[in-house]
Amino acid sequence: MKTFLTLLLPFSAAGLLAQPHTHLPDRAIDFPDVPGYLTLKADLHMHTVFSDGSVWPDIRVEEALRDSLDVIALTEHLEYQPHKDDIPHPDRNRAHEIALKHAANSNLIVVRGSEITRSMPPGHANAIFIKDANNILTKDPLDAFKEAHAQGAFIFWNHPNWIAQNPDGIARLTKMHEKLLKKGYLHGIEVVNETTYSVEALQIALEHNLTILGTSDIHGLIDWLYEVPNGGHRPVTLVFAKEKTAESIKEALFAGRTTVWFNNTLIGRQEMLVPLITASVTVAGAGYIESHKRPSEVLEVELVNNSDAGFILYNKSGYTFHAHDEVVMLEPHSVTRLMVKTLAPKKEIALTFTVLNAVIAPETHPDITWQVVVKE
Amino acid sequence: MKTFLTLLLPFSAAGLLAQPHTHLPDRAIDFPDVPGYLTLKADLHMHTVFSDGSVWPDIRVEEALRDSLDVIALTEHLEYQPHKDDIPHPDRNRAHEIALKHAANSNLIVVRGSEITRSMPPGHANAIFIKDANNILTKDPLDAFKEAHAQGAFIFWNHPNWIAQNPDGIARLTKMHEKLLKKGYLHGIEVVNETTYSVEALQIALEHNLTILGTSDIHGLIDWLYEVPNGGHRPVTLVFAKEKTAESIKEALFAGRTTVWFNNTLIGRQEMLVPLITASVTVAGAGYIESHKRPSEVLEVELVNNSDAGFILYNKSGYTFHAHDEVVMLEPHSVTRLMVKTLAPKKEIALTFTVLNAVIAPETHPDITWQVVVKE
Amino acid sequence: MKTFLTLLLPFSAAGLLAQPHTHLPDRAIDFPDVPGYLTLKADLHMHTVFSDGSVWPDIRVEEALRDSLDVIALTEHLEYQPHKDDIPHPDRNRAHEIALKHAANSNLIVVRGSEITRSMPPGHANAIFIKDANNILTKDPLDAFKEAHAQGAFIFWNHPNWIAQNPDGIARLTKMHEKLLKKGYLHGIEVVNETTYSVEALQIALEHNLTILGTSDIHGLIDWLYEVPNGGHRPVTLVFAKEKTAESIKEALFAGRTTVWFNNTLIGRQEMLVPLITASVTVAGAGYIESHKRPSEVLEVELVNNSDAGFILYNKSGYTFHAHDEVVMLEPHSVTRLMVKTLAPKKEIALTFTVLNAVIAPETHPDITWQVVVKE
Amino acid sequence: MKTFLTLLLPFSAAGLLAQPHTHLPDRAIDFPDVPGYLTLKADLHMHTVFSDGSVWPDIRVEEALRDSLDVIALTEHLEYQPHKDDIPHPDRNRAHEIALKHAANSNLIVVRGSEITRSMPPGHANAIFIKDANNILTKDPLDAFKEAHAQGAFIFWNHPNWIAQNPDGIARLTKMHEKLLKKGYLHGIEVVNETTYSVEALQIALEHNLTILGTSDIHGLIDWLYEVPNGGHRPVTLVFAKEKTAESIKEALFAGRTTVWFNNTLIGRQEMLVPLITASVTVAGAGYIESHKRPSEVLEVELVNNSDAGFILYNKSGYTFHAHDEVVMLEPHSVTRLMVKTLAPKKEIALTFTVLNAVIAPETHPDITWQVVVKE
Repeated sequence: MKTFLTLLLPFSAAGLLAQPHTHLPDRAIDFPDVPGYLTLKADLHMHTVFSDGSVWPDIRVEEALRDSLDVIALTEHLEYQPHKDDIPHPDRNRAHEIALKHAANSNLIVVRGSEITRSMPPGHANAIFIKDANNILTKDPLDAFKEAHAQGAFIFWNHPNWIAQNPDGIARLTKMHEKLLKKGYLHGIEVVNETTYSVEALQIALEHNLTILGTSDIHGLIDWLYEVPNGGHRPVTLVFAKEKTAESIKEALFAGRTTVWFNNTLIGRQEMLVPLITASVTVAGAGYIESHKRPSEVLEVELVNNSDAGFILYNKSGYTFHAHDEVVMLEPHSVTRLMVKTLAPKKEIALTFTVLNAVIAPETHPDITWQVVVKE
Repeated sequence: MKTFLTLLLPFSAAGLLAQPHTHLPDRAIDFPDVPGYLTLKADLHMHTVFSDGSVWPDIRVEEALRDSLDVIALTEHLEYQPHKDDIPHPDRNRAHEIALKHAANSNLIVVRGSEITRSMPPGHANAIFIKDANNILTKDPLDAFKEAHAQGAFIFWNHPNWIAQNPDGIARLTKMHEKLLKKGYLHGIEVVNETTYSVEALQIALEHNLTILGTSDIHGLIDWLYEVPNGGHRPVTLVFAKEKTAESIKEALFAGRTTVWFNNTLIGRQEMLVPLITASVTVAGAGYIESHKRPSEVLEVELVNNSDAGFILYNKSGYTFHAHDEVVMLEPHSVTRLMVKTLAPKKEIALTFTVLNAVIAPETHPDITWQVVVKE
Repeated sequence: MKTFLTLLLPFSAAGLLAQPHTHLPDRAIDFPDVPGYLTLKADLHMHTVFSDGSVWPDIRVEEALRDSLDVIALTEHLEYQPHKDDIPHPDRNRAHEIALKHAANSNLIVVRGSEITRSMPPGHANAIFIKDANNILTKDPLDAFKEAHAQGAFIFWNHPNWIAQNPDGIARLTKMHEKLLKKGYLHGIEVVNETTYSVEALQIALEHNLTILGTSDIHGLIDWLYEVPNGGHRPVTLVFAKEKTAESIKEALFAGRTTVWFNNTLIGRQEMLVPLITASVTVAGAGYIESHKRPSEVLEVELVNNSDAGFILYNKSGYTFHAHDEVVMLEPHSVTRLMVKTLAPKKEIALTFTVLNAVIAPETHPDITWQVVVKE
Repeated sequence: MKTFLTLLLPFSAAGLLAQPHTHLPDRAIDFPDVPGYLTLKADLHMHTVFSDGSVWPDIRVEEALRDSLDVIALTEHLEYQPHKDDIPHPDRNRAHEIALKHAANSNLIVVRGSEITRSMPPGHANAIFIKDANNILTKDPLDAFKEAHAQGAFIFWNHPNWIAQNPDGIARLTKMHEKLLKKGYLHGIEVVNETTYSVEALQIALEHNLTILGTSDIHGLIDWLYEVPNGGHRPVTLVFAKEKTAESIKEALFAGRTTVWFNNTLIGRQEMLVPLITASVTVAGAGYIESHKRPSEVLEVELVNNSDAGFILYNKSGYTFHAHDEVVMLEPHSVTRLMVKTLAPKKEIALTFTVLNAVIAPETHPDITWQVVVKE
């Protein structure tokens, strides 16, 4: 091998020598776009050493790139500053600015945010798409919400199920929350926070038309907290946006176009979650199987799942299956062959399943129908 | 290191030099015993070159040892002998005898069996625990069943859903089957055969008090057919026997004490399947979690699954969970921590789940209650 | 998802429904071609139930397809027939013919072969590319070689290191072998057989101009014998042929153009083994690394290994390395970045390594030089 | 399952509820003790936000616990404070004190250290086992070493191969280093720093009786920097100490009892490295193999490697092997069966190998002999 050769490889020499953000995408979160919208991955609640986290902001950017997120917000506690002996007078925008600089050469969007950190009520809330965090550090909690709102912020209630503030873990609206809602100071609610889920928060979201959010609220390291026993991935809010811009993401959040992806569960309004599932799982083909060169009435249907979710389907089709009972698991990024006993040759059938790990309301999972056209 | 040392190792020198059957137990099937019975793993339908299979009988023994089976039967087709040009006059007991000899130094039980191979009706049936296969090779199908019965055989209907004989894949009793039942010539039915499952066969089993069986009906290699897309393991009949003896297994089969393990699904009568699940999944402990050193009303319950099944549980407990929606997956051989919002401190709670991948009748999954005592 | 969609997927519906030989290529053996020749993978020694093996010939074809072999020969023992009670009068060509038929729709070449099975001397030998195995079943061993030669066979000495015939495991030529050599009845020798290697056989090959071969001599299952502790792959003879045809393979074997791939070791004549290594390992690029935006004199060289071999290189370049001592491991199908301290900026350097897991003669490993041109 | 049951499990309920530092030990580094000494794992060079690192000190403690280290030192740059706008007046002992507090309930030893950070010469050096880092922040570099020495510090030269200070990457002693040596201000040298290795630094260590060290010099995250392409583990200094105490570790460092474990390479003085290898690799047994129930002269020797190192052995024994050429790989934590052609029955043999991935001096690998006693 005496001659010089440049190969087209996943890791080309040029790439290795030049790119600062080349990571193996082991943790990359992957969902398809839906008709009319991009499916963007957002984590809008996280901490660094600038409040009570354990990392410099650059680590949050690198973690997000490894998880292939589209948008993050660093939301330091305004009022809670346990590192103040070492970081005595922080500008409350500081973490954001360091992260923004570090993300400059990537395609990660970093939006300015802050966590209003009060005892209950109202508890904690994140204001994102703000202009200046320092001004939100007010004496009266209501003034903080008012100021954030005046800055044009999207404001959401954090971990309404937090046992440090609610020992029974049950999310409940207080009078103060009702006041915030009435004034238009509350636009979303965390149904998922860190490693927890609140079906009661989902109920509140649906009753009060709040945007459904899921966040990591990470203080330590993403890789350590979300090992396989905690789902293998951080919770994210899937945001269905027209474009990958901060403005478009903001529009989608205010419009409530989100779904939460948490611990192999998808939680969202039916109008967004159903399109996500039908974009994720498609019928690639169908044909009657043969036996001893004679056709049968057993139809093989190939279901392709091109998402990270492992779907747990429950048969509502009226047909019985030749290789499954009523539960059909579609592993992430896989092809599943389902054999349907159609009783007679058909040109087209409808397969309806309840998607058990999708939640559109408390105790409510969507029924989804896939139309299957048989190959001639 | 100048001195000679014998270590206690998983692979000791003595072992490696002496044992003919040392295999890495990657494929070993593992379920716990149940109160009063051993849980034995049986595959009672398989073929070799002595009918239409592609291996010598020794391979079937080795495969069974790798899968850690307790009992097998080689069930060559009596009437179908495609290799007769090369193996012209086979004693129909021959495959059994070779396997028996090969298994002599292992703890695998090999029972004598044979497949009565007829067109529909009655289709195919296995007779096991027979005395001489040659005598069952009769002209009239009914005589074959009569002779097997006279030899004391346990007889079961094979793949009643086979599309080569039933193009729609629907298991149905014919008049001839009703006659066999009436005469006491039919004791079991394959609800699972190779890679297929028949909920209609399960219905027949329940209506006619037939033993529920699942078999590989293997002709090629177990390792190749049951790669992960086909469940990662062969179908087996779990037999609940008093002892690991052929006699005790026969008694259990006639008594109907079985459950089928197939493609991560357990199919069996409620009275055997429920004890298997409660032996597989146990509560290892429970305690209220703390937050900021104060107790909460969220109870952490540790569920231990010491079986190969990945259980798909659906919450029927009346409580909501702090880290799951209603579906809880218990991975095989794992510990799952469930956080239950008990609303007030309790000393004991009951957790009830529907086990979705357990089937006790068509469209029927058992509800199982685990009693949880809280650690003081 | 109401519309029908055909995706271009690795496993399309059409493919799954139609193709009989679709296997996941987990075990596929992969080496690049060399200048002027295809690198074909051959296993020319194997057994079935037609002598003392445990499988029907179709399994050998399927195993070969899974290992992505190009050519096999079923070489039943002519004289040793332990299954004769069951398979009483076998045509000695029978296994070949069954395999040939089974491989008809694949691109696997099956060549007719047979094993002359005698006590030592001459021990066992394979004759391949024969016309009729039955005629080689002679009383006198020499007559068997004579007949095979008359049929145009390529004949090679099997396991000259076999401890059943040579308790010390040392391959040695006897007078009878010298006679066979003199008459032109011996063209190759197994340097590798099953799980064994004989450096003494390699010496004989080099001294007597015999083709170097490695074979599985499989009796049971390839998957079981060659699990990771035995190398993770069967031994194969890499044959450097002008075309993928039986004729071209025969020409290459008579011309001695082979290399053996065994237990992560490559054994062959320097003139074939060195081109194989230089085709396997190439330099994808090289550039001086920077530190604090200033250039250094440390050259990063990207070595691409596109073969199954994990190469063990020992530095003979005169340079020292910035991230390795003298041993550099190139994992199979990987990219390794080597940092070379060139002491001054260079436009081109030569990197010379001894390839320790390549053997061109006893105690002799090739030194190979890669020319590295530095990126401007 | 109606009764409460406490199982003895790897993850007991009690443990999960109570222990703050329970991690899955995926990254745990594992080497056996040697005769007379514990083998302790040390990383004595690392950074946090208190100089130019990206994490709070608690993360360094957690990383060390995951890697099962015994001792660490946080060695912030005294003179280089890029985060001074946010952390304006750091006490140079601050990172140490936070880490010490965080490690209080673990068995990790945290020793006080600091990095003297100067341009070349003398470049950078770590002083550990110091009393007060602030006093070492002097104007003149020599005064810093003098003060550290006065505090009883163990002082070592950092990355003498650093291309930012030595563009050719070659470690060289300057006059100032000779002066430091003469005054007794320099006790060790980094032969390995981060992802780099310097054989020239090893030469300096041997010539000037300096302790051999390897460190991560981590600024970001251990998990990200040391993924498999960079060895899969951080570099550590294995310290051979009489007890697991700070005092005993200090004694061992001053006495030079270390070996570096880096990228599957062990680098150290012969007197420590050879005992480590012989403690890691032992002969578990040996017996002559049989063929057809007759003994042979091929001896099967079972070599047990109970360390993280994958040893690359080169045969110097005078014997040839029956299943290997001259290179024998002992995978980490594995059992390797070596078949030795002893030519005649022996009661005891000596097996000598050069250990290619062990380095005791430039271009020098130890020859190690294992005495093998044959089982009767």
